[in-house]
Amino acid sequence: PANLIWGNSASILVGDFLFARAFNLMVETGSMDALGILSNAASVIAEGEVQQLAALRNIAMTEADYMDVIKAKTAALFAAATEVSPVIAGLDTDKRQALRDYGLKLGLAFQLIDDALDYGGQQAALGKSVGDDFREGKMTLPVIRTLTRADEAEIAFWRKVIVERDQDDLDLQRAVSYLRKSGALEETVQMARRFSVEAIEALDQFEKTPLRDCLQNLAAFVVSRAS
Amino acid sequence: PANLIWGNSASILVGDFLFARAFNLMVETGSMDALGILSNAASVIAEGEVQQLAALRNIAMTEADYMDVIKAKTAALFAAATEVSPVIAGLDTDKRQALRDYGLKLGLAFQLIDDALDYGGQQAALGKSVGDDFREGKMTLPVIRTLTRADEAEIAFWRKVIVERDQDDLDLQRAVSYLRKSGALEETVQMARRFSVEAIEALDQFEKTPLRDCLQNLAAFVVSRAS
Repeated sequence: PANLIWGNSASILVGDFLFARAFNLMVETGSMDALGILSNAASVIAEGEVQQLAALRNIAMTEADYMDVIKAKTAALFAAATEVSPVIAGLDTDKRQALRDYGLKLGLAFQLIDDALDYGGQQAALGKSVGDDFREGKMTLPVIRTLTRADEAEIAFWRKVIVERDQDDLDLQRAVSYLRKSGALEETVQMARRFSVEAIEALDQFEKTPLRDCLQNLAAFVVSRAS
Repeated sequence: PANLIWGNSASILVGDFLFARAFNLMVETGSMDALGILSNAASVIAEGEVQQLAALRNIAMTEADYMDVIKAKTAALFAAATEVSPVIAGLDTDKRQALRDYGLKLGLAFQLIDDALDYGGQQAALGKSVGDDFREGKMTLPVIRTLTRADEAEIAFWRKVIVERDQDDLDLQRAVSYLRKSGALEETVQMARRFSVEAIEALDQFEKTPLRDCLQNLAAFVVSRAS
């Protein structure tokens, strides 16, 4: 992470600078509708990140809470990105809604796979270290579903590692074995696959072109990381 | 500072959220010109902050560099704030330029006083602790001017406290005595007073109204902190 390499001040300032430059580029489009979509997304994303931070180490987090968080912090970004193009191109409301829907589903699929890979991926496929979420005490779908099926001994384990953040070298392996046994890891990947299919279907109303193929392949690619 | 009370993550995320909300409010004005002014200011401010960080502990920083930094990090914000109102109100270019100029001069006066007070103000007037800039090794006008008039022993002192950041309890007092002796502290306040007068004069072309009085009084108030 940038802050470990350049320090907090430089990383935060450069982040602010990039945000400001992005804002410049959005203004340059000259489209008030595009600005509305993007500024709204920026608020929703920031709120999603705050919600996620507030839910850290809270083993009472529900699946509905989790879906709200990933919809806000990830899917809203993807949806805004895919919605601005039809808006700027002046396409009709149906097509605009279809592309927004595509982005939303793509974002959900992406995030679910990312959260599953944290407990079972190859580091190269993930772009981060396996176990990062576990070490931070981040509540993701595999853990939330496993908890609903856990016996008392397992709940005590999750309480120790997530709430008390008391983890030793073998705890990640033990967590992974619980997530596999409960079926939650596989279910998370399945849910991602369903969103990927929905993303692909959202584009069916568009004529088949290389661009549509590209977007549909992207939706397939996002879930291929987990196989 | 927020990061010491709530931690880095929460402070950064809330900062991002406020930036995003500000962006929403700007879009709500519906004025593309206002958005252009504000998005441009956001970039300039972020660049100014980066420039300031890069100049930290650099005793070769010139007065021209310093003026560039305070124009970018502070005066650009004030100028954008005072320019958007005439733009939204549809005033002519002269009045728009006058209000921008007012904000720019007000910002310069404000920052110069702030930098002078760091070496000689009452904590209550300053809203921060005396000596913060000194402890951080921030190069501000009082130090830059004093350095141009310093003998070898004094230069060695500034090198020790700013470049090497080797400071003991008496060094701040010693720094203040050098800044007073060189006349730089008083000159910084004088420069602020000139900008304050220019800010007030920039509004002379407007009809005398309670609002004009208010803005002109604000420019006078900004420099009154130092007396």
